[in-house]
Amino acid sequence: MKGGFLNMQSLKKIMVKKQEKETKKTDKKEIGITAEKDDFSEWFTQLMLKADLADYTKVSGCMVFKPVAYAMWEKIKEECDKKFKKLGIKNVYFPLLIPESLLIKEKEHVKGFVPEVAWVTQAGDSKLNERLAIRPTSETIMYDSYAKWIRSWRDLPLKYNQWNNVIRWEFKHPVPFMRTREFLWNEGHTVFATEEEALAEEKPVLNAYKEVCENLMALYGEPGLKTKKETFAGAVFSRKLHYIMPNGKAIEGPPFHHDGQNFAKAYGIKFLDKDGKEKYAWQNTWAITTRMLGVMFSIHSDDKGLILPPRIAPNKVVIIPILMTDSKEKVLKKAKELFKDLENLNLEPILDDREEYKPGYKFNEYELKGIPLRIEIGPKDLEKNQVIITRRDTGEKQTLAIKDIAKQIPKLLDNIHNSMFEKSKKLYKSKLASANSLEQLKKVIANKQLGKVPMCKNPECEEMLKYETQGAKAIFIAENEKVKNEKCIICNKKAGYFVYAGKSY
Amino acid sequence: MKGGFLNMQSLKKIMVKKQEKETKKTDKKEIGITAEKDDFSEWFTQLMLKADLADYTKVSGCMVFKPVAYAMWEKIKEECDKKFKKLGIKNVYFPLLIPESLLIKEKEHVKGFVPEVAWVTQAGDSKLNERLAIRPTSETIMYDSYAKWIRSWRDLPLKYNQWNNVIRWEFKHPVPFMRTREFLWNEGHTVFATEEEALAEEKPVLNAYKEVCENLMALYGEPGLKTKKETFAGAVFSRKLHYIMPNGKAIEGPPFHHDGQNFAKAYGIKFLDKDGKEKYAWQNTWAITTRMLGVMFSIHSDDKGLILPPRIAPNKVVIIPILMTDSKEKVLKKAKELFKDLENLNLEPILDDREEYKPGYKFNEYELKGIPLRIEIGPKDLEKNQVIITRRDTGEKQTLAIKDIAKQIPKLLDNIHNSMFEKSKKLYKSKLASANSLEQLKKVIANKQLGKVPMCKNPECEEMLKYETQGAKAIFIAENEKVKNEKCIICNKKAGYFVYAGKSY
Repeated sequence: MKGGFLNMQSLKKIMVKKQEKETKKTDKKEIGITAEKDDFSEWFTQLMLKADLADYTKVSGCMVFKPVAYAMWEKIKEECDKKFKKLGIKNVYFPLLIPESLLIKEKEHVKGFVPEVAWVTQAGDSKLNERLAIRPTSETIMYDSYAKWIRSWRDLPLKYNQWNNVIRWEFKHPVPFMRTREFLWNEGHTVFATEEEALAEEKPVLNAYKEVCENLMALYGEPGLKTKKETFAGAVFSRKLHYIMPNGKAIEGPPFHHDGQNFAKAYGIKFLDKDGKEKYAWQNTWAITTRMLGVMFSIHSDDKGLILPPRIAPNKVVIIPILMTDSKEKVLKKAKELFKDLENLNLEPILDDREEYKPGYKFNEYELKGIPLRIEIGPKDLEKNQVIITRRDTGEKQTLAIKDIAKQIPKLLDNIHNSMFEKSKKLYKSKLASANSLEQLKKVIANKQLGKVPMCKNPECEEMLKYETQGAKAIFIAENEKVKNEKCIICNKKAGYFVYAGKSY
Repeated sequence: MKGGFLNMQSLKKIMVKKQEKETKKTDKKEIGITAEKDDFSEWFTQLMLKADLADYTKVSGCMVFKPVAYAMWEKIKEECDKKFKKLGIKNVYFPLLIPESLLIKEKEHVKGFVPEVAWVTQAGDSKLNERLAIRPTSETIMYDSYAKWIRSWRDLPLKYNQWNNVIRWEFKHPVPFMRTREFLWNEGHTVFATEEEALAEEKPVLNAYKEVCENLMALYGEPGLKTKKETFAGAVFSRKLHYIMPNGKAIEGPPFHHDGQNFAKAYGIKFLDKDGKEKYAWQNTWAITTRMLGVMFSIHSDDKGLILPPRIAPNKVVIIPILMTDSKEKVLKKAKELFKDLENLNLEPILDDREEYKPGYKFNEYELKGIPLRIEIGPKDLEKNQVIITRRDTGEKQTLAIKDIAKQIPKLLDNIHNSMFEKSKKLYKSKLASANSLEQLKKVIANKQLGKVPMCKNPECEEMLKYETQGAKAIFIAENEKVKNEKCIICNKKAGYFVYAGKSY
C-alpha cells in the first residue's frame, strides 16, 4: 500500500538509506521529498518522515510525535489554555480507564464509540471482573463525578477541561496526525443551570479555537453546523470549524457540541435551583486535537517540504554562514553575534556552522524542515554590512543591513504569517463551488472542491449521496443561505437546506 | 477498611452530608477534618476529599485530580521543563500502548513490570493478535525507535523526555496521589556515546528536581543510592531523592537511573563511532511523578487542613471583607481595590464577598484549603487604613497598613516559603536515627524514624530485615559514612555499608 501507514517497510528503507548517505551527499533529491504535492498521500507521508515530524511504531496506527511536532502541540495547548482561562475554565485530570458499565449509560453515545473501544481485560495475571475501556472521550467517567459534585445552583456553572490522550481503534486507513488510533486533545466539559447559558458558551469557545488556528497556525477555516446524521453521538447539535485540504477533502477542526440535557438525564446530573425545584443541568463539550497539526502541515507545505507559520515554528530563523578558509573566523564571529541578537528576540534561531556540509545542502535541509526565514552571511556580505534573507514561504530573497535586523526580522515574520494566512483563505474559498444536481456535484468533487447543494433533511438521502459519490458527505449546512424552491439533489423532494458536500477525512 | 481507597462508602457519605449542611452551619467540625494528623491514613484521606484536591472514581485505584491539585501539577511541569530545556532536553510523545513482544526484550525490566501491566486484548469486537500493554514506563517502546534513529556518533547525545500518564496495576492498598494505579509523570530517556557523558548527567538532573522540590514545593529531601535489591529493573544503579513523612515512612521522590548498556544491548542501540567502530550506547532514565503532590500535602499540612507553599499555591491570598449593614459598601469597595492590586502582582487572589456565609465559616474554609495568606478587612480596619493578615502556616496575625500591601505581601509570602522549607528540613533531620542492632532498629521504627544500620550487601539479608521488621526496607545507602568493623545487623558478618532502614510507601 503505497504511502500507507500500516505497511511502511519501503519508506523505512528509504529513511535508513537517507541516513546512511546523509554525510556524503548534498544532492537535494537525496534528502528532499521525491513526490509532488499533487500525489498527496505519498507526499504527506514523506513529509512527515523526512521533515522529522513523526515516525511509525510497532503499534499499528500509533505514531511518535518528534520534538518539532510536539513543541508545536505544546504551543497550541498554551495558547488555548490562555483563552480558556479567560473564559473561567479550569483544568482537571480524570482516569484513562472507564468501566464498561459507565461507558454504556448514554445510548446514542455508546453506539458512536463502542465499535472503536480498546478494552483492558487483564491486569498482570488476573482477568478483570469488568472490562475497562481506554477513554475514546471522557463524558461517561466525568459525568458520573459531575452527578456527585453538583447539588445546588451554587455549584454551577461548572467549567472543566482536560488535556489528555485518547484511543479510538479506527479500522480505516490511518494517516499520521490526520487519523491515528491514539491522539492528543483537549476535552472541555461544561455544565450550566439553563439552556440559555449553555448556548451562550458556543461563540466564545469557537472563537477561541478560531483565533488559535488563525493567529498561531495561519489557517483559515469556517464554522459550520453539522447535519443530524453527522452530529456528535449524544449531542443536540454540533458546530465545527472546517478546513479544506489541497486535495479537496474537507477535514474537521475544533468542534463545539451542545448536549442539551441528554447526558444530564443519563448520568443524573441534577441540581436544586433557586426556586427550590430539582432540575437537570445543560451541557456542552468542545475539543481541539493533534489532527490540526496535520491540517497545518498539509495546507501550507510544498514540494520542497514543510512550510511552518512563524508564530508556531519552534525555530523561526536559521543562520547559515558561508565559510571560506581565509574569512571563516570573521564570518563566524558575526554569525554568532547575529545568533545572540535573534535569541534575545525569542526567535530561537539555529546557527548551522557545520563545516562538513556545503551551504546548498543546508539550504535544502532547512527548506525541507520549514524554517520560516534563512539568513546567509558570507565574506562579501560582511564587507557590505549586510545579510541575505530568504523567505521559506515564497522563496523571495532580499538583502538587509545588519543594523536593521533586530527591527526588520520580526516585521518580516509577521508579513510571512499574514501572507500564509491570506493564501490559506484563498485556498479555502477556491475550494467552494455550487451544484444543482448530483451530476454537477460529481464534477465539482472530481475538481477537488466541495459543492453547495440543496438537500432535504432525510438522513437516508445522505446515505444515498455517499453511495452515489463513492464516499462524499454533507460536510456542513450553509446556514447563511435559505432555500426557496430548490429540490433535494437525491430524492427531488423539497430541499430543507443547502449543505456543502464533498470528500472528507 | 478505615481510611481506605477501595472501600470509601463511609467517607463519601460524610461528604454528601457536608454539602447538604454547608449552607446552614459555620461550625468548624462540619467542614473541617475530623481526624488528627497522627491518625495519618484517615487524616490524609479526609484532607484529599475535603480540601477538594482529589476524588475517587468507579475505577478502583484511579482518582480525579481536581482543579487545585492539577494546577499544582502543571506548575511542577512548567518549572521542570524550564530546567530540562536548559539541559538541552526535548519533549516528545510516544504511544500509550506497547506490543507484548517489545515489552519483554530486557529480562530484568520485564520481571519488574509485567506483574503490574494492564493488558488491552480487544478492540471493538475484535480480539487482537498480540496483547498490548498500557505503558507502565516507556523504555521498551522508546528504545525500539532509538535503535532505528541512532546510527552515528553525530546522532548523540539524544536527550528526549515525555510528560504522560502510565498505569501500574498495583495490588497493594492504593492511597490518593501516593500510590495510584494511574499516575502522571515525566520520563526522561537520554542516550550517550560514552559512559562518562552518561554519568555526568546525574548531578544536573537530580539538582533540577531537587530545586523544584525545594524552591517550589518547600520540601527538603536527600538523594540516596539504592541497594542492588531496590535498584530499578534494568538499571546499573538508581539514585533517588527521598522524603520522610510525618508518620516516619520514607517515600521516594524523583529517581535517576543509570542503565549502562543494558537496554542498548537488549534493543540494539548501536552507533558508528568516530573511530569507525560500532558501539553500544549508554543510557539514563529519570522521572518526577504526581506522587510528589501527596508528599507535599502530607508533610506541610495540619489538623485544620491543607497548608500550601506559596509559590505553588494557585491562589496565594484570600481577602475576606467583614460585611456589616452600615459599612458594607465602603468595605467592599476597598476589598475590590485590594483584589486588583494583588491580581496585578500575579498572586491570583480570591475575594470572598458571599453574604450568606459568616467570616468564621470562611476562615475555616480557607484554612482547610490551605491558602497561604488571609487578609481581613472590616470597617474599623478601614478607618485605620489597615488590614489584618493571618499566615496559614503558623496562624500568626499582624496588622498591615494598606499602603504597604504591594510591598509587604510578596515578602511575607517568601517568608512563609522559607519557614515551611526550614520546617520540612527539621522534620527530615528529626526522622533520622542510628541503630546498631535489629532490636534497636525496631525501636527506632516504632518511634516513626529511619535507622542508620550496618548491613552486608547480600539481598537475602534485606529480605530477612523485611520479615523481621514486618515490612521495613533498606531505603538508601548512607554514602557519606564508611563502615569500619561493624557487623551486619542481620547475619552478623562484616558490614558492606550503612543503610537507612525503615518503613516506606
